[in-house]
Amino acid sequence: MNLTLALDVMGGDVGPRITIPAALQALKNDSRLSLLLFGDRRQIQPLIPSLSSSITSRFTLVHTDRYISSDTGVTQALRYSKGTSMRLALEAVQKGDAAACVSGGNTAALMGLAKVLVQPLMGIQRPALVSILPTINGKYSIMLDLGANVSVTSEILSQFALMGTVLAENQFNLVYPRVALLNIGIEKTKGLPVIRETDHFLRQQNMLNYIGFVEGNKLLNHYADVIVCDGFSGNIALKTLEGALKNIVTLIKQPLSNPSWWEKGLKLLARPLLKPYHRQLQILNPDDYNGASLLGLRSVVVKSHGSASAVAFTRAIEQAAWQVRQQIPNKILTGLQQGHFNNR
Amino acid sequence: MNLTLALDVMGGDVGPRITIPAALQALKNDSRLSLLLFGDRRQIQPLIPSLSSSITSRFTLVHTDRYISSDTGVTQALRYSKGTSMRLALEAVQKGDAAACVSGGNTAALMGLAKVLVQPLMGIQRPALVSILPTINGKYSIMLDLGANVSVTSEILSQFALMGTVLAENQFNLVYPRVALLNIGIEKTKGLPVIRETDHFLRQQNMLNYIGFVEGNKLLNHYADVIVCDGFSGNIALKTLEGALKNIVTLIKQPLSNPSWWEKGLKLLARPLLKPYHRQLQILNPDDYNGASLLGLRSVVVKSHGSASAVAFTRAIEQAAWQVRQQIPNKILTGLQQGHFNNR
Repeated sequence: MNLTLALDVMGGDVGPRITIPAALQALKNDSRLSLLLFGDRRQIQPLIPSLSSSITSRFTLVHTDRYISSDTGVTQALRYSKGTSMRLALEAVQKGDAAACVSGGNTAALMGLAKVLVQPLMGIQRPALVSILPTINGKYSIMLDLGANVSVTSEILSQFALMGTVLAENQFNLVYPRVALLNIGIEKTKGLPVIRETDHFLRQQNMLNYIGFVEGNKLLNHYADVIVCDGFSGNIALKTLEGALKNIVTLIKQPLSNPSWWEKGLKLLARPLLKPYHRQLQILNPDDYNGASLLGLRSVVVKSHGSASAVAFTRAIEQAAWQVRQQIPNKILTGLQQGHFNNR
Repeated sequence: MNLTLALDVMGGDVGPRITIPAALQALKNDSRLSLLLFGDRRQIQPLIPSLSSSITSRFTLVHTDRYISSDTGVTQALRYSKGTSMRLALEAVQKGDAAACVSGGNTAALMGLAKVLVQPLMGIQRPALVSILPTINGKYSIMLDLGANVSVTSEILSQFALMGTVLAENQFNLVYPRVALLNIGIEKTKGLPVIRETDHFLRQQNMLNYIGFVEGNKLLNHYADVIVCDGFSGNIALKTLEGALKNIVTLIKQPLSNPSWWEKGLKLLARPLLKPYHRQLQILNPDDYNGASLLGLRSVVVKSHGSASAVAFTRAIEQAAWQVRQQIPNKILTGLQQGHFNNR
């Protein structure tokens, strides 16, 4: 299926020097992909090498020198974002010029603008920020919400469960993926009232394979395929996990302090032996998966990690293309109509 | 200072086979310590070897065959706990027979009963569950609340900040320890309204060294000496951290799959080389610190980890003795009176 995506080239910590090579790689990998690139042509053009026409014919550069910075608040982003690269990319989706939008920029602004321009699916109370979590058995769990909605109701959490289920079914080819609710214990009496209400509601939903509460210490253990939480605790859990993994990788990769000659020699000899250690840690390396999707909108919007590498940003583009081709928004809508996930 | 502590011998996953050796070790380590041991004498007596009278004269066994199981809810624990080992230990504190209580049992029941029997300090809205977090630079942060209070107000969070400060000052010999508030971003506009209110309030408290928000990915980085949070997100963050560390230690310690003869030989040779790897991971090993304290009560109550080893349970007893000798409850009361941490 031929596909055009809109890219906010200016988003992310580095901007065009990451996003442009990533975009060109995505075009090379997928011959049915076209891209609209929104950003500053003075920064972009020097980054584009001479390419075969099979590539150049598939991207269009739309110049703007305005962009939303990472410290812009949502209110400000909504009011003063006219003509910024992020807003133009979302407007391209709104107008139908592109099927999806990818940005590595300000998450709150992206969610805020997407809600206004792309709009939530009919019946969805709140779109969610969702990410894929690698687990120690080499598989993945889907986790949502990760920070878009700090206060939630049981209806909102139940809709997260549905959206996560649709994504897990398609992303991992699962039938009846297991859904768990993040809580501070597994007993029915534990947690906030909204969590207990959601637990009660989800137990009655035959459409979902709800398996109960999950605690923070099981997040890496593939205990469930979908982990549902409010955006506040979800964001804290995800960042805690990322911080722990990053710190440990740093600790492990630290060179020995004052190695003796025999330690140096032994280390050289033992290098093949240390490899599995590093490989095992890489299973959980946050660079392996990238960013998050905004789920519950009428069109696909993917948020790349701000510090993503070019390889990781290419993955974010591919994830957006995949979600469009799988018609994820449509499938969520169908699920919503089949179940009883809204009061309307 | 001579000191008598009350021990709930039946608490924890294992019970007397852990708590009794731990108690005897604590008595050996500290000649001014006496213990009241509450539990089932049929299980306890076989575990007590013949000891010198300098030890036997310092513990008293108080028999009960009733105990609170780990899945008992708070309401049930409050109503039907008469004569249980945990309740008897707390009542010993209430009556003044013991200066503090240590239990490895049901956390919710311990907090619920302690609030009724030991009671909060005058002016403290809610006692908190506090723990010490090892950080990658070999130092520690204090974190509270870890699950006792799932819903909080800004007054409650501010009191946590004060209590954590008093503990950090004494535990780590710090002047003006840095206090941070756990949030999903560092900008003022981020997070729940109650978090933003607390941020505003703490900025005006000269008594505290409040440094602003901290995100989950900095928990291991000694970014602050005291990390304040509500019990819901705090519990999720702590368990997420514990789970991540445990999983990674497991991954690293996994033997090579199908090692060849030269890999086996090399591994033997390289063992001294691998040691720093293991040691570096141990810095963050959750076994190194144990359990949590209930802070904000009129007397000291320490909650050992349910799965603590005998060594770790001894540490919990020592922590309780230390808090009594440092007069932590009194110092919190003084801080409360000097600052403006309550509405009364």
